[in-house]
Amino acid sequence: MNHRSDELPPVAGNGLLDRRAFLRGGMALAGYTVVNSAAAETLVDDAWSRVPGSVTQPYGERSRFEEKVVRTLTNPQGEPRVQNARTPLHLLNGVITPAGQHFVVAQAGAPDIDPARHRIAIHGLVRQPLVFTLEALARYPQVTRMHFIECGGNGAPLFSPQPLAATLQALHGLVSCSEWTGVMLSTLLEEAGIDPRAKWLIAEGADAPTLTRSVPLKKALDDTMIALYQNGERLLPSNGYPARLLVPGWEGNMNIKWLRRIKLTDQPGYTFPEAKTYTPLLPNGKAYNFYFVQEVKSFITHPSPGLKMNGAGLYEISGLAFSGDGRIARVMVSADGGKTWAQAALQEPVLAKSFTRFRLPWRWDGGSAILQSRATDERGNVQPTRTEFVAARGELKTVPPVAAFPNQHHNAVMSWGIDANGGVKHVYA
Amino acid sequence: MNHRSDELPPVAGNGLLDRRAFLRGGMALAGYTVVNSAAAETLVDDAWSRVPGSVTQPYGERSRFEEKVVRTLTNPQGEPRVQNARTPLHLLNGVITPAGQHFVVAQAGAPDIDPARHRIAIHGLVRQPLVFTLEALARYPQVTRMHFIECGGNGAPLFSPQPLAATLQALHGLVSCSEWTGVMLSTLLEEAGIDPRAKWLIAEGADAPTLTRSVPLKKALDDTMIALYQNGERLLPSNGYPARLLVPGWEGNMNIKWLRRIKLTDQPGYTFPEAKTYTPLLPNGKAYNFYFVQEVKSFITHPSPGLKMNGAGLYEISGLAFSGDGRIARVMVSADGGKTWAQAALQEPVLAKSFTRFRLPWRWDGGSAILQSRATDERGNVQPTRTEFVAARGELKTVPPVAAFPNQHHNAVMSWGIDANGGVKHVYA
Repeated sequence: MNHRSDELPPVAGNGLLDRRAFLRGGMALAGYTVVNSAAAETLVDDAWSRVPGSVTQPYGERSRFEEKVVRTLTNPQGEPRVQNARTPLHLLNGVITPAGQHFVVAQAGAPDIDPARHRIAIHGLVRQPLVFTLEALARYPQVTRMHFIECGGNGAPLFSPQPLAATLQALHGLVSCSEWTGVMLSTLLEEAGIDPRAKWLIAEGADAPTLTRSVPLKKALDDTMIALYQNGERLLPSNGYPARLLVPGWEGNMNIKWLRRIKLTDQPGYTFPEAKTYTPLLPNGKAYNFYFVQEVKSFITHPSPGLKMNGAGLYEISGLAFSGDGRIARVMVSADGGKTWAQAALQEPVLAKSFTRFRLPWRWDGGSAILQSRATDERGNVQPTRTEFVAARGELKTVPPVAAFPNQHHNAVMSWGIDANGGVKHVYA
Repeated sequence: MNHRSDELPPVAGNGLLDRRAFLRGGMALAGYTVVNSAAAETLVDDAWSRVPGSVTQPYGERSRFEEKVVRTLTNPQGEPRVQNARTPLHLLNGVITPAGQHFVVAQAGAPDIDPARHRIAIHGLVRQPLVFTLEALARYPQVTRMHFIECGGNGAPLFSPQPLAATLQALHGLVSCSEWTGVMLSTLLEEAGIDPRAKWLIAEGADAPTLTRSVPLKKALDDTMIALYQNGERLLPSNGYPARLLVPGWEGNMNIKWLRRIKLTDQPGYTFPEAKTYTPLLPNGKAYNFYFVQEVKSFITHPSPGLKMNGAGLYEISGLAFSGDGRIARVMVSADGGKTWAQAALQEPVLAKSFTRFRLPWRWDGGSAILQSRATDERGNVQPTRTEFVAARGELKTVPPVAAFPNQHHNAVMSWGIDANGGVKHVYA
C-alpha cells in the first residue's frame, strides 16, 4: 500500500518530484524515529508535563524558546538616521506576516499618536475639503484585503557582484504580507468631490520628517485604501498607527504611515523619496522616475541560509511568490541551478498582490545542489534570471555595506547552494 | 453626481440599504467635518509630529492607546481551576484574530515546552509506531489553512432566561480565527500504517492535566492537521506551542494543544471532556454524546455593546459568520427585530470553516432598533431563532454566574437593541 519515496520518478533534475506526489499519500520519509509502543509511553515523563503551566495573560506572549525569531535592526539605538527592521522570512511559515514581525523603514521612528485627537484631511483640488476623525472613518464601509508591502530597496544587497554570506532576512527581508482592513480611498474622494483638474494626490505622514509621496489619481481610485487594522487588530505604531495609506503592489514607501493629509493636485509633488531615493539609476546613465510597481518576485524560504539540511532523503521545498501586478500564475523550481525546472504547487487561495506560498517535494541525494525559484504572474511577467537582470539594471562597483546605486527593485531569480554537509548558502548561478 | 444617502431606497425595514449601495459610490455620510483648505494646514501642529518617534523594536509592540484591547480573563491569578481568556471581538476587525488575542480555555495554564526535546508519538493500532521531533515534522509537506476554533461552551451565557448586560466578548468571546500552517495528519497516519481495526484516535496534550479527546478516524483523515504555525509564526504557548491538533470546525476542546500523543484505537476513549463536560443535556432528559460540529453561527460586531452610535445617519453594520460544516452561503440582517431582512455582502474569499465577515449599509433614523444577523451555510444549515433554539435545547433555571447545564453549542440568532441615545445592549427579540 505504502511506497517508498525512491519509487517516485523525478519530474526535473537532481531529485525534484511531482507537486502532487504528496497528495497521493504514503510517502515514507526518513525523518522519524521508529519506536515500539512502550517507548511512546515514556513521553509522559517530560518535566513540563508534571507541573502547572504559566498563567494565561490578557495578551498572549511568545515562548522563551522563540526569542531569537525577531526582526533585525539597522539602527537599534535610534540614532538620527533611517531605522530598518527586516522580517525573518526564513523562520516564519504560511502566508501572513505577524504585525510585530512586519518590516519597517522609518526615517525617525514611530510618532506617539493619540487616536482621539488624530485627524485625516482630504483637500486640494476637491469640491469640498474634509477632515475625518477615526470615529467618523469607522462609519464608512470597510474592506478586508490580503496584500504584501515591499520596500523599493528590498534586495539591494543582491546588486553586489559577489554573493553574500547572508540569510534571506538580510537579503530580502523588507517585504511582508498582512490582512488589512480599512476604507477604500475612492469612497472618501468621491465624498469630497474630485475636481476634474486633479490627476495626482500627495499623501503625507504625521511623522517628524513628514514623509510625503505622490500617487496617480487612477491608482488612488482603483485599489488604494486607508488601512486601520492589520491582521485583525489596530495597526502597530511601527506600521503606521492609527492609519496608513495602502497602495497595493506599489513601492512600500508610498504606503504612507501615520497618514495625516491627502492633497489632490494636477501634478506630482516631486518629493525627496520619489525624485531622489526611489529613482533607480540605469547602466545607460538614465534613471527611472516614478517607478512604482514592485515586480514579480519569488524566493525559497525552506531551505535557505540559516536552516540546515539534516541528512539525505525527502524534503519539502517551500517559498513565497508575489507580484505588484496581480496574482501569481505559476512558480517553477530548479534543483540544478536552472538547467531543468518543475512546477510547484500554489497554496490556495491565490490572491492578487499578496504572498502566495509555493511548495514542491524534493528527494535530496545528499550531494551538492543549487535551488532556484522563478515566478510568473497572471499578466505574464516573469522573474528575470540574474544574468538578464544585471544586463538591464547593472550591479554595484563596490561591495556592501558601502551604500551606492543601483539599489532598487531587484527581482532576479535567487539561488541557494546546498553542500554535502547540508549547509545552505547564497550563491550566484 | 453625488447623491445623498437619503435618496437611496431601503431594502428592508428600519433603514437597511442594499449591500451594493456603497459600491455605486458617492454616498454622503454625516461623520466628517467640513473645513476650508486653510484648516487642513493646521494638522501639522500636532505634538507628535514635532519630535522624533519611538525607536523601532525587534518585535513590534502595540500603541499605549490600545492597552485596553485585550482578552478578558476568568482566572488571572492562575488558581487551580480552568483559565478562560475571551477574544475582544467587538474591538477587532477583518477576519483574522491576532495570536495574542486568540481565546484560551486551559485547565492548568501553558506548559513550558522545549521544542528541541518535545516529541509527538503516533502509536496504537498502526503497523509501525512513530515518534517525531519537530525537526522531522518540518520535512513533511505542509498546508496553510484559515480556520476558526470555537469552544463548545461559547455562548453559554445566552442560556440565561434574561438578556445580560454584557459585551460580545463576554457573551461569545470563545471563538477566534487564524491562518494555521502544519502537516496533514493523514500524511503521518499513512506513514505509520493504519491497522484496519482502527476507527478512532485518542489525542493527548502535554499539559499537566493531560487533556485527552477522541476523534473519529474519518475526520482525522479528512482535514485534521498538526498545526505548527499560527498567523505566520510559531504558536504561542497559550495556543499550544509547539504543536496542536487542528480539527477544523469541531469543538475547540478537541483541538488538543501541546500535542504529545496520538493513539489509534477501535473505540473512543470516553475521556472526561467528551463523556461529561461537552455532553449537552437536552430538555427531555437525554444528552448528546460526541457532539462535535460547531454549528452555523453569526453575530454583529459593529455596532455591539461597548460601542456607541454617534448621531443618526449612515453606518455600516458589520459582523462575523462561520460554520463547522463548510462555507457561509448567506447572511441576512434585520434592523427591526426579525420582521424584515436584507442580504449582507460577504467579504471574499469565503473559506470553509473560517470566519467570514459580512457588511451592510444602514441608515439609522436615530430611533430605537433591534439588529440581528442570521447565517446559512453551504449545506443549508440555518441559525435558529432564539425561540426555536430554546424549544429544542432549553434554557437555564438559574442566572449566571451560577454554573449549570445546559451551557453548550448555543448558536441562536443574537439581538442588539439600539436606543435613541445611541446606546447598544443585548436584548432578546
